Amino acid sequence: MLFCDIGNTTLHFFGDGRDDRVSAEGFAPATVAETVHYLCVNERLNPLLQRCDNWIDLRPMIPWEKYYESMGVDRIAACEAVENGTIIDAGSAVTVDIVKAGRFQGGFIYPGVTAMQHAYRSISPHLDYSFNFELELAKMPKNSRDAISYGYLRTFCSEVMRHDGPIILTGGDAEHFVSLFPSATIDTHLVFKGMKTILENGC
Amino acid sequence: MLFCDIGNTTLHFFGDGRDDRVSAEGFAPATVAETVHYLCVNERLNPLLQRCDNWIDLRPMIPWEKYYESMGVDRIAACEAVENGTIIDAGSAVTVDIVKAGRFQGGFIYPGVTAMQHAYRSISPHLDYSFNFELELAKMPKNSRDAISYGYLRTFCSEVMRHDGPIILTGGDAEHFVSLFPSATIDTHLVFKGMKTILENGC
Repeated sequence: MLFCDIGNTTLHFFGDGRDDRVSAEGFAPATVAETVHYLCVNERLNPLLQRCDNWIDLRPMIPWEKYYESMGVDRIAACEAVENGTIIDAGSAVTVDIVKAGRFQGGFIYPGVTAMQHAYRSISPHLDYSFNFELELAKMPKNSRDAISYGYLRTFCSEVMRHDGPIILTGGDAEHFVSLFPSATIDTHLVFKGMKTILENGC
Repeated sequence: MLFCDIGNTTLHFFGDGRDDRVSAEGFAPATVAETVHYLCVNERLNPLLQRCDNWIDLRPMIPWEKYYESMGVDRIAACEAVENGTIIDAGSAVTVDIVKAGRFQGGFIYPGVTAMQHAYRSISPHLDYSFNFELELAKMPKNSRDAISYGYLRTFCSEVMRHDGPIILTGGDAEHFVSLFPSATIDTHLVFKGMKTILENGC
């Protein structure tokens, strides 16, 4: 069975031997012949997908009573794949969602690396640094690059660490963030696991 | 005695009956007749100020051995005004500096409200919200505006609260941030107190 997680910049296909990403820019759903079960947060593609019979939207099968209306469907899928834990989905945004005994407890949204780097740069050219993910988290910074890296990463880490339970990392930047959470596991297919659960429970 | 704290967007004058802000855009130092003791992080104004005899730069009087070379002089001045505490200077950037027994322990830089709002907006129009400073910090969010406000404010708060000692808020956005730190004191003239200390010790 083929699944597709459709973001603002990328379509991630998984299943039937596929595990590849395609740029969302200019993508035409009609070029895919197979049946695809998908979740989509991309506003341009949504109406195009609705017109294709072989593209099956999992959105109506989501158990919405557990979530809130404006919540991203990719976040929901990740939550559906987890029984207990803190899910960090690190992409253009970094979302953090807490699940306990299979129930969504709430979550928050933090800017991704690119957006945050741009935020610092927009304040002053003196704050234009790449983040140091190898930052010593226990030490207060005494140089500019670490002062910014700490501002982005340590604040995030301090909040995530307040919550109990295992940490599961997913998304394109998961490997950057794992250095902050040595006990975390990376699961790049978490959203697809959740999509499978949604499909099974929704049928 | 007249002091001036010169930022990228504003000059803040204090002393001799003055306590006012002037836009940095197009400001000409030669239009001020009085003697002004200043600290400046504004690259455009720095060379103009050096040419005016009545503008006295406090930068050479800073006890640099306590700080690091690329640290903003306004942050240093605020540190010089505090014996023990966490200083939050909330402006276009939000700087957090820890001082213990009069010694700078290190600090970090977080984006200010405008830069962070822009960061969220740049990721998706669905993340374009004003921050909710009245956010219930103990509760995981279940709506988009709070998910973003929590991402900006709670992460910051979690890190600041890890440190002991009193919290002193300064800068143009101090009043927004005080709702996050009810025990904090606001001191809008902290940088000027530090400038006075630097001048007294440097003479």
